[in-house]
Amino acid sequence: MLRIALAQMRVVPGRPDRNVQTMLKMIHEAKTQDVNLIVFPEMAIPGYLLGDAWEQTAFLEDCEAYGQEIIAASQGIAVMFGNVAVDWAKKNNDGRVRKYNAFFTAQDGQLVAPEKTPYPFTIKTLLPNYREFDDTRHFFSLQKLAQELGVATENLLAPIRLSVRDTIYTVGCLLCEDGWSDDYGLSPMKILREKERPDFFVNISSSPYTLGKNDKRHRVFSRRAAETGAPLLYVNNVGIQNNGKTVYTFDGTNAAYDSKGILRLSGAPYEETTQIFDLETLSERRSVTIVDEPEAAPIFRALSYGVHLFLESIGMSRVVVGVSGGIDSAVAAALYARVLPPENLLLVNMPSVYNSETTKGLARRLAENLGCRYATVPIQPSVELTIEQLEHATIENLFDGTTERLSVSSFMAENIQARDRSSRVLAGLAAAFGGGFTCNANKAETTVGYSTLYGDQSGFLSALADLWKYQVYDLARYMNEFVYKREVIPQETIDIVPSAELSDKQNVDKGQGDPLYYPYHDYLFRAFVERWQKATPQDILEWYADGTLEKEIGCAPRLVEKYFPTPKSFIDDLERWWNQFSGLAVAKRIQAPPILAVSRRAFGFDHRESQNGPYYTKKYYTLKEKLLYTP
Amino acid sequence: MLRIALAQMRVVPGRPDRNVQTMLKMIHEAKTQDVNLIVFPEMAIPGYLLGDAWEQTAFLEDCEAYGQEIIAASQGIAVMFGNVAVDWAKKNNDGRVRKYNAFFTAQDGQLVAPEKTPYPFTIKTLLPNYREFDDTRHFFSLQKLAQELGVATENLLAPIRLSVRDTIYTVGCLLCEDGWSDDYGLSPMKILREKERPDFFVNISSSPYTLGKNDKRHRVFSRRAAETGAPLLYVNNVGIQNNGKTVYTFDGTNAAYDSKGILRLSGAPYEETTQIFDLETLSERRSVTIVDEPEAAPIFRALSYGVHLFLESIGMSRVVVGVSGGIDSAVAAALYARVLPPENLLLVNMPSVYNSETTKGLARRLAENLGCRYATVPIQPSVELTIEQLEHATIENLFDGTTERLSVSSFMAENIQARDRSSRVLAGLAAAFGGGFTCNANKAETTVGYSTLYGDQSGFLSALADLWKYQVYDLARYMNEFVYKREVIPQETIDIVPSAELSDKQNVDKGQGDPLYYPYHDYLFRAFVERWQKATPQDILEWYADGTLEKEIGCAPRLVEKYFPTPKSFIDDLERWWNQFSGLAVAKRIQAPPILAVSRRAFGFDHRESQNGPYYTKKYYTLKEKLLYTP
Repeated sequence: MLRIALAQMRVVPGRPDRNVQTMLKMIHEAKTQDVNLIVFPEMAIPGYLLGDAWEQTAFLEDCEAYGQEIIAASQGIAVMFGNVAVDWAKKNNDGRVRKYNAFFTAQDGQLVAPEKTPYPFTIKTLLPNYREFDDTRHFFSLQKLAQELGVATENLLAPIRLSVRDTIYTVGCLLCEDGWSDDYGLSPMKILREKERPDFFVNISSSPYTLGKNDKRHRVFSRRAAETGAPLLYVNNVGIQNNGKTVYTFDGTNAAYDSKGILRLSGAPYEETTQIFDLETLSERRSVTIVDEPEAAPIFRALSYGVHLFLESIGMSRVVVGVSGGIDSAVAAALYARVLPPENLLLVNMPSVYNSETTKGLARRLAENLGCRYATVPIQPSVELTIEQLEHATIENLFDGTTERLSVSSFMAENIQARDRSSRVLAGLAAAFGGGFTCNANKAETTVGYSTLYGDQSGFLSALADLWKYQVYDLARYMNEFVYKREVIPQETIDIVPSAELSDKQNVDKGQGDPLYYPYHDYLFRAFVERWQKATPQDILEWYADGTLEKEIGCAPRLVEKYFPTPKSFIDDLERWWNQFSGLAVAKRIQAPPILAVSRRAFGFDHRESQNGPYYTKKYYTLKEKLLYTP
Repeated sequence: MLRIALAQMRVVPGRPDRNVQTMLKMIHEAKTQDVNLIVFPEMAIPGYLLGDAWEQTAFLEDCEAYGQEIIAASQGIAVMFGNVAVDWAKKNNDGRVRKYNAFFTAQDGQLVAPEKTPYPFTIKTLLPNYREFDDTRHFFSLQKLAQELGVATENLLAPIRLSVRDTIYTVGCLLCEDGWSDDYGLSPMKILREKERPDFFVNISSSPYTLGKNDKRHRVFSRRAAETGAPLLYVNNVGIQNNGKTVYTFDGTNAAYDSKGILRLSGAPYEETTQIFDLETLSERRSVTIVDEPEAAPIFRALSYGVHLFLESIGMSRVVVGVSGGIDSAVAAALYARVLPPENLLLVNMPSVYNSETTKGLARRLAENLGCRYATVPIQPSVELTIEQLEHATIENLFDGTTERLSVSSFMAENIQARDRSSRVLAGLAAAFGGGFTCNANKAETTVGYSTLYGDQSGFLSALADLWKYQVYDLARYMNEFVYKREVIPQETIDIVPSAELSDKQNVDKGQGDPLYYPYHDYLFRAFVERWQKATPQDILEWYADGTLEKEIGCAPRLVEKYFPTPKSFIDDLERWWNQFSGLAVAKRIQAPPILAVSRRAFGFDHRESQNGPYYTKKYYTLKEKLLYTP
């Protein structure tokens, strides 16, 4: 019998000390339960998303030293774990020391090395270098090592032999992407299977959560296990890690697939837990049913977990949320209220003359429903002082001795209000309250920069900026129904027209709101950002001309003709938002707060962009011409 | 005779239309001068730093179509140029369409293909994936193609044969990094030389300017040409390109090295020019002498060019600079004054009660010296209103029906002043003036976040944030002496103690200023950021214990004992700034403006970082213990 523990540990990025402490504790517990093999995730010791901390020699030495502690702790048990492996005698292509993303196996205080390979550990073969992944920046792949040594990659792929009570188990060791080989023209799992028929495979991962990824993993890994005819064990960490601009939750969800590809064990998402089982009886366990749930359920799980751990990681325990009575700030407040005790949450309404009694009432009602702290800080006196100061400032023209004054337009006054709320009131209140203030922007606004820099775009974290507007509404309804099980977010907040209320043209009581048609623009913008091959105006216009636009972008049928009666109105709208998306919105995103990622493409490090301005292709202009001037 | 033109063109990133227009014009001019071969830079058509725009199918098609225009224009001339090459039938490892960073040669309307290679163009062999470079994210290297095809990379490396007036020239085609092969274990130039002894080599590049890079390139390329015994022609673009957070200038500086490695021709930095010469008489030209100049000279060139083109690229023609009378804002103002006409530059002094008559006078004198626009906007009334509003706001505790008030500390009041200046006054004034406002932070402040978010850390661009404090002073003196040739930046501004003047403890007249000892901290922070293997507290403490710290970090001798009489005072200082650098400063940099890069490691995309908090290694603690408790 081989008793295995899959350790769904919380990995704290950049903290080998804390991670090794967790691992030692879990190893100790596993021993008390007669476990023969405990498996930890990829990069369990250093963490995975560390930016360029991989360039710190002392940090690398430290990770090695902590790795030795785990090896030493493997007396009477086998331990598999991910760590950075350094070959101090070799270099990476950047001239820095050679680093591998490595899979170590230790038993009885010794490393168990794969046979006929240059190192006593397994090296990650396939290094992801897309989305938020930067593996090739820091690590040398097994593929590159093979090229360097002048051998085929196949020759360097070997299983390890684990001896437990006189039985020898052949184990195929994989690191994360090694199991996702479809686009690499080389499958480590297939090679290992053909070479050695391992008794089972272990995939150690550090895989950020995004919507739908678990479903895809189940499909892929279940198929792989069945093809191979050997159990496949998947171990992933929990916790949060970030690349500066983009914050990821890690949901763990360890999994054990039997040799038929049936899921027999699964770790609860976002919990630090261990799954213990006997390999020989894995396929006798009841299969795990994957629960069907609305999209808002995993979104809420990811966001509440992410917010909770982000606050913990930056040492912040008190939060201020500016609440307008509108949907985004209400959802943000309801989210933070699940994470913080009511006395640590302060909601602030900051009315100007443009805010309706309706929304002011809704803001207060929200706070009452949440039972937290609440304050009203009017911005009118300060906004008036600012406008008057700006308009009365004497500009001396030192080149000719004349003087002049500037004037403040109503558009400028809108931005003055937004900045007054965030940079003056919220930032000041948050400091006095001993915490930070939130950014409540959604993904549609973020896409086109429908926000004010140093105004509503500010905050310590954008918890909702990876949600399209419809997902914000879904989340509001989900929280009322399933999380709070009562109307915490007032139904009227869900029902009123979304509006910034920054001028008398944005009167919610008259139904005047944002310039965005969310049921269409959510999907148009998603096509700009989230399609694997990104859509541009050329694609959009081609689909429009073909009558396939709604289908391609996934919005409701016949929306386009409803909003845009003529090709001209359609094109004007398209160019307006494309210009914003690739123009000023980029400048705003550069200075935006970190975003909590849930989608398959979040702004920030996941979606890299240059401030280059909008561009239209030749074909776009031809098609536009045709659409506009064909009778 | 082979007459060659090296086209040091300005490449506008993301604008194939504009770039091809430039190229067609240059081809036309070259023809009128009987040129046989014109060479354009790497990625001349699309530009190089485009973020993830490489994922837009329509953009790729457009680049291909524009490439066809250049091929068609090669009647009667040979044209070498860089472009993206797409193999629509294959995939990259991310599942997206296969893309190569490619070197095209066209002549008489046809492509001239390298022999026995799979494609009619030369593929970049070595893809940089460090600093700001992300080549492997988007492009498939020749090395990977060789591995895919199961052949050695050598087999796919072939020169092209150029036939001009019945002479056939064998040309070794290289793309940028292919010439910098020291850390790759494979040298495309050496392989080509041994295989085919090319008549000359052409290296097309898109190489961002950083301090000292040209000197290094001269050394490396001159040696390579001499080793090879064949002329080496280097073509680079001018212009600016950015990766969002980090903005690079491209200085061109085309170069022709003869077969002895002697530099015979060089393009003037940052100018769109063409160097025309006959290959056969290249070595008869006078050699080019590389001028020795103070470091501030290329810094000024890069910054003034970068600021000029950045303003142009975002369509901004008017700029507001907040001036305090201190050195950073004075240097920023003097820099912008070289780029903008005086009527488009507005300097604003924003005093509170803490600003001395000294600095207010210096701010005004600076404006007078520059002869631009000037205004004074006091912040005291607004700051007082804010503090009073925050302290009088009633916080209702909705969980128990009580109320309370918050109080504003003097530290909070400092940040309120900073935010009032930037987010209220400067942002408002800039909008009314029809432009943007600058961020004047230097690199030392940026490293440790000695700045206020939404305050002095705001602006549309940080032109000085890649300069250490001593470089800011050097630049001030350089501009007075060599650029303006008069005292534009008042000498007193250079002489007074640097101070934020945000409280009565920062009184410049009493010599009270910033908590930073710049002559030491500039160099300490540089070790954290710019060393190829980054230094951490462990390294610093080891050097300190060895007595080699000043030498290792490059500051003046004996500074450490001057500032820190005891190990404890040294360690306290080290930990204070390391905590800031890896803590709150990361959060601030995430929301900071784009930085104009000049160093070999600028913050932003060049120095990637996660918000993970400070970390100290085991060895650090051991050494600290030893230093503190050894008598």
